[in-house]
Amino acid sequence: MPQPAPARIGDAAEDIDTPALLIELDAFERNLRKMAEFAKEAGVRLRPHSKTHKSAHIARLQMELGAVGVCCQKVSEAEALVQSGINDVLISNQVVGRHKLNRLSALARHAKVAVCADDADNVADLNAAAGQVGVIMDVLVEIDVGAGRCGVAPGDAAVTLAKEIDRSRNLRFAGIQAYQGSAQHIRDFAERKMAINAAQVLTKKTVEQLAEAGLDCDTVGGAGTGTYEFHTKSKVWNELQCGSYVFMDADYGQNRMSDGKPFRAFENSLFVLATVMSKTGDDFCVVDAGHKALGNDQGFPVVSELEDVTYSKPSDEHGRLDLSETRQALKLGDKVRLIPGHCDPTVNLYDWYVGVRNGRVEALWQVTARGALT
Amino acid sequence: MPQPAPARIGDAAEDIDTPALLIELDAFERNLRKMAEFAKEAGVRLRPHSKTHKSAHIARLQMELGAVGVCCQKVSEAEALVQSGINDVLISNQVVGRHKLNRLSALARHAKVAVCADDADNVADLNAAAGQVGVIMDVLVEIDVGAGRCGVAPGDAAVTLAKEIDRSRNLRFAGIQAYQGSAQHIRDFAERKMAINAAQVLTKKTVEQLAEAGLDCDTVGGAGTGTYEFHTKSKVWNELQCGSYVFMDADYGQNRMSDGKPFRAFENSLFVLATVMSKTGDDFCVVDAGHKALGNDQGFPVVSELEDVTYSKPSDEHGRLDLSETRQALKLGDKVRLIPGHCDPTVNLYDWYVGVRNGRVEALWQVTARGALT
Repeated sequence: MPQPAPARIGDAAEDIDTPALLIELDAFERNLRKMAEFAKEAGVRLRPHSKTHKSAHIARLQMELGAVGVCCQKVSEAEALVQSGINDVLISNQVVGRHKLNRLSALARHAKVAVCADDADNVADLNAAAGQVGVIMDVLVEIDVGAGRCGVAPGDAAVTLAKEIDRSRNLRFAGIQAYQGSAQHIRDFAERKMAINAAQVLTKKTVEQLAEAGLDCDTVGGAGTGTYEFHTKSKVWNELQCGSYVFMDADYGQNRMSDGKPFRAFENSLFVLATVMSKTGDDFCVVDAGHKALGNDQGFPVVSELEDVTYSKPSDEHGRLDLSETRQALKLGDKVRLIPGHCDPTVNLYDWYVGVRNGRVEALWQVTARGALT
Repeated sequence: MPQPAPARIGDAAEDIDTPALLIELDAFERNLRKMAEFAKEAGVRLRPHSKTHKSAHIARLQMELGAVGVCCQKVSEAEALVQSGINDVLISNQVVGRHKLNRLSALARHAKVAVCADDADNVADLNAAAGQVGVIMDVLVEIDVGAGRCGVAPGDAAVTLAKEIDRSRNLRFAGIQAYQGSAQHIRDFAERKMAINAAQVLTKKTVEQLAEAGLDCDTVGGAGTGTYEFHTKSKVWNELQCGSYVFMDADYGQNRMSDGKPFRAFENSLFVLATVMSKTGDDFCVVDAGHKALGNDQGFPVVSELEDVTYSKPSDEHGRLDLSETRQALKLGDKVRLIPGHCDPTVNLYDWYVGVRNGRVEALWQVTARGALT
């Protein structure tokens, strides 16, 4: 059963039950508009990654501002979004196994659905699954441009696989997926740029080889919030897949720009609201948000607004706030806002977003694809 | 919306969609019986911690084998379990804030509910909340026995707070909560024992001081899967709160016994079933289980059955299996079983348990309190 919402519309923000996933709507809407305008001006398509927000409502807001559709990482995410009215989804990932292939091809009867592939046997399976329900499915060849995860090698291997897709009766070769995930959080500007330059060379070469083989790429997709400007300048990619820009992970604040200043193109709009639940001394207190309330894999959350208060030592349902370096007084029952180290796995822990503006609850949005793993 | 179950009763285990949370029922049932028999023979009460499994069904199995009730960490967990028929719950934690206090006292009209406290103002709030709905609520004083998290100091401070509870019209002083969470995963046997010895001295002293003040402890609660034998031998604790023994985290395999051998009192009965979704070379492959499918805060999962295959570099929905040191062949579509580094936050990511016996799906159990954060 989904959990009940932790607030009611009209409540004061301080009255939200905790832990809760809070969106500051003004900052959030500025983030949405800024990226939409950037893409429009740069003349590239925007297909934001929904794995960050898992929300049909937010996907719709992005598409109203010009996004051509969204990316998903799992078939179950795509199912949840399509059921809620999102009609154009790229699964920027491989789909393997009988049940998933059945579900993918069935879904393709109800919305525009594309998928990535990096294996010839998988292409044969995709073709068979599409044939069984009578759809023509768009397939992108994923190439490994430096992340060392999924994807065939750029160049010849990609061309071979694209030809395989092209000659499959129920598939259409739709382009290439060239995402450099490991570049997003490189701290140094020049190093980050270099990683994308390397990806660019490989991607461009592959696009050219495909063209020589008579295979045009409708889509050359990739880019994340940490690198989207490099991709756009390159003119090689034509579809940006940024996700995190809507909320901004605390960790992105560690990325530096060319002038050495922190990366601040977008604002922190997502917070985990927590309550001080124990305070037995002066040096620390304990809040009610631990590993089950925060994605801590890219570092612990940053405490918002309270200077020199740091979060540490999470256990399942507790986190410790160090008060030894601060002049801030915190007492039992006080609420604090934590900026998640990594928003994507944090969001996945909640059933509800609580949208706040000017200190009042304005919106309760379900996390549509919460727990959509398969 | 909850996710659909990833299997059907009667399916072959290999046919379960992934990632899925799989219980090997034979091993699981042996674990349940072993701890139940241990407690019975030792003459201590068993109140297993449900934060591990979050399942009303498993709580019921534990109580059928003699457990007096269960522990929860959050009011929302207790609500979910009580709604599903569990009638005796200790919230082994502080409950702070208007909404939670209202919910706690309301719940106490529907089941036997106890709670912990470490603050006099909180005791006053608990008393007021209980008074408003006309219940007498059991309250335990939590003492800090070395974990440095919640709890008042042992000794005088605990007696002062216990007196406060005792004189509150709508509360009953029910004993003390003395859990040493940070001792559970100390690797060395002697060091682990020493940590519990230290906790034992503090707990015993507090119990004696309380008795001198005329306050008897019905319950002296604590202990986890890593330390329950020390607690039992001490005769100071009378209620064990172990949780992990039902499943066993991979991380517990690092704990050593007095003979230097790994801690193996219980079997790994919980697995995340994953699929090889990409294999583009010989040295590694990629499985479809990453941070959103695994609680990685106590280390990455151990790959079951496949020798010298290691899991690393998780991203949100991917994990990498290193094949460079193994003679095992893995191909696209193969299923692998991962033993979670930390079961509690792993379970919280799923809506369903898939119970398997002799290679067939025998049970589908909902994770009753999945996402119960407040």
